[in-house]
Amino acid sequence: MNLPAPLYGTPYFAVVFTSLRTADDPEGYATMAARMVELASQQPGFLGVESARGDERLGITVSYWQSLEAIKAWRDEAEHRLAQAGGRSKWYQQYRLRVCRVERETLFERGP
Amino acid sequence: MNLPAPLYGTPYFAVVFTSLRTADDPEGYATMAARMVELASQQPGFLGVESARGDERLGITVSYWQSLEAIKAWRDEAEHRLAQAGGRSKWYQQYRLRVCRVERETLFERGP
Repeated sequence: MNLPAPLYGTPYFAVVFTSLRTADDPEGYATMAARMVELASQQPGFLGVESARGDERLGITVSYWQSLEAIKAWRDEAEHRLAQAGGRSKWYQQYRLRVCRVERETLFERGP
Repeated sequence: MNLPAPLYGTPYFAVVFTSLRTADDPEGYATMAARMVELASQQPGFLGVESARGDERLGITVSYWQSLEAIKAWRDEAEHRLAQAGGRSKWYQQYRLRVCRVERETLFERGP
């Protein structure tokens, strides 16, 4: 695998979504999570997404967007709204969502 | 476990560090990573940190800071500099580092 290229061109915006899962419904959660990545990728202004979930059920997903308007439109997307409701009703114990303006970016790539 | 409280008070700053590990030196990497969390926590302006590493060696660490000056001071901290050099010489295949201004935050806590 590779990380997506970071050269989106600052300034752009990041949504940092940090979540602690319940133990409930792992299959339904995985299906929803994959669908949301697919759906987000089709939204206007979407730039990319990175996601990791480690032990102790803590996960971090960062999605990147061209504008705050694009983030608002994604927040209000109908199928995404249903997923958000599912998150609050069964999948998440806690979450934090932070909308950020990316001011500077650097990258490192190991040589061959 | 619990997520740290998010009420740091906007605006503040986030460093989103996304990395792809090499397969090398897992013990040395784990020791360094734990030490860097401990050391960062002692820096002026440090607010908190969240970290997850999933399958396929992709990890995301987000640290939160009161100011851009605090982020610069942490970047230049001597032991952290050594860890950064180790990251480029052996631990990381790729990384992206994004310095962000947190503009808005929301949280969810499941009731008892």
